[in-house]
Amino acid sequence: MTEVLRGKNVSDKIKEDIVKDVEALKKEGIEPLLKIVRVGAKPNDISYEKSLIKNSEKLGIIAEVLELPEDITTEGLKLEIESLNRNDKVSGIIIFRPLPSHIDADVISSTISPKKDVDCMNPLNLAKVFDGDFSGFSPGTPEACMEMLDFYGVDLEGKNVVIINRTMVLGKPLAMMMLSKNATVTVCHSRTKDLPSITREADVVVTALGRAKMFTKDYVGEHSICIDVGVSEDSEGKLSGDLDYANLEDYVKMITPVPGGVGAVTTAVLFKNVVKACKL
Amino acid sequence: MTEVLRGKNVSDKIKEDIVKDVEALKKEGIEPLLKIVRVGAKPNDISYEKSLIKNSEKLGIIAEVLELPEDITTEGLKLEIESLNRNDKVSGIIIFRPLPSHIDADVISSTISPKKDVDCMNPLNLAKVFDGDFSGFSPGTPEACMEMLDFYGVDLEGKNVVIINRTMVLGKPLAMMMLSKNATVTVCHSRTKDLPSITREADVVVTALGRAKMFTKDYVGEHSICIDVGVSEDSEGKLSGDLDYANLEDYVKMITPVPGGVGAVTTAVLFKNVVKACKL
Repeated sequence: MTEVLRGKNVSDKIKEDIVKDVEALKKEGIEPLLKIVRVGAKPNDISYEKSLIKNSEKLGIIAEVLELPEDITTEGLKLEIESLNRNDKVSGIIIFRPLPSHIDADVISSTISPKKDVDCMNPLNLAKVFDGDFSGFSPGTPEACMEMLDFYGVDLEGKNVVIINRTMVLGKPLAMMMLSKNATVTVCHSRTKDLPSITREADVVVTALGRAKMFTKDYVGEHSICIDVGVSEDSEGKLSGDLDYANLEDYVKMITPVPGGVGAVTTAVLFKNVVKACKL
Repeated sequence: MTEVLRGKNVSDKIKEDIVKDVEALKKEGIEPLLKIVRVGAKPNDISYEKSLIKNSEKLGIIAEVLELPEDITTEGLKLEIESLNRNDKVSGIIIFRPLPSHIDADVISSTISPKKDVDCMNPLNLAKVFDGDFSGFSPGTPEACMEMLDFYGVDLEGKNVVIINRTMVLGKPLAMMMLSKNATVTVCHSRTKDLPSITREADVVVTALGRAKMFTKDYVGEHSICIDVGVSEDSEGKLSGDLDYANLEDYVKMITPVPGGVGAVTTAVLFKNVVKACKL
């Protein structure tokens, strides 16, 4: 019997803990406040922003938007962020990415205070993750994968994990997190040769290629724990993960659906980081 | 026929290039200068220092030692480094590690200017390596491994590499460097289960466990390229690598000796970084 790892259960548990933490913080006179920095008005950004505001209200966290013009300069954006860094009322800052191409993203990432950097943009926080030091902030999606595995009782000690993604928003930080849990970690990517022979042997497979239904039974076995972080449209225009879910859901050991899997946990992880920022 | 990958050949080639670069820099009026910061007088540090000075002379690079008392405070050491950061004559800075335990090593690492950080201590340089951005500095030992493979014509594209080490001075940065060359990378460690089954399948095996002669024929095959970064004493008190060299040198595809392998390349890499610092 395949166990379906639904994100909602994980997210509900994290949010439950956040509500308690927020209550405790408020008793100490601390009002958690997430500042959302949006440059321009891309539809994706606005829809994410709405979802954050809706979630924040349920958690007792204030989410405020700082909307900035599309044509703001790097220096102008830097000054805005420095002002948020200095503002004691602001607990955490998230800047929607990607920024317009005329802005120097490296300058902006380094400007955000490491202590308010709840989306893990600052290289100082990334260097900590690299070093296996999780006292700072970690990127949201790999953190959501870790929360998922932890919630469903998957102990990574001594496990063989294969991650098919080598980006800074998923594969690389996730590899560091899993190494810290004593997993043996293999990072694969588009240039990997004979991928099925590698993924079949793994205890845990994390996919994030964005190729709908690519991972068939050829890639996994009955022992496989499959975490799907891929999101793309299938041939019928429906949202799909990298896993051939219909054929795997009665075959592998554990599986995350798309939608309703890892993606459903990332917002909770972001707000968990806002609470963490209040405590730093 | 096993090909023995000797470090001296690699080191000689790197040094040859350095000498040319130094000549060109001097024509532009730039005198490359490495500042060696030594706290206390540990015998290991002094012997490494002597070797650096000897090498620097041959390369036309100035190596100067700043000797500081064992009981210097974090704040005191920080001031010394800030002074070196401001000094335009200083091209690169290396601080011998480990520092005495009363010193906050994180503060010191962050103090050293990223542009003079030839031993890659500053988290900003480590974050770049994590991101696969090699415009800054990389740690010496993994860089030496990459120089070795490059010199002997090993193309990592599509290769399966297994690294047995997950430290910040070797395994993790090496994994990032190899991913950037499109290798599929597995990071193993002391908690990895059934290590031989993993290493036997790999095209390239990099060992750094410090367990003399542990890697026997059980761990590798005739196709294996074996890079040995382990250094320890064998049962007879002789310096040895992790590889069972006597039994592998006529068996595997390529092998690095210990001593005379990767270790012989690290000093050249450090001075290559001093030249790079002059150009930044």
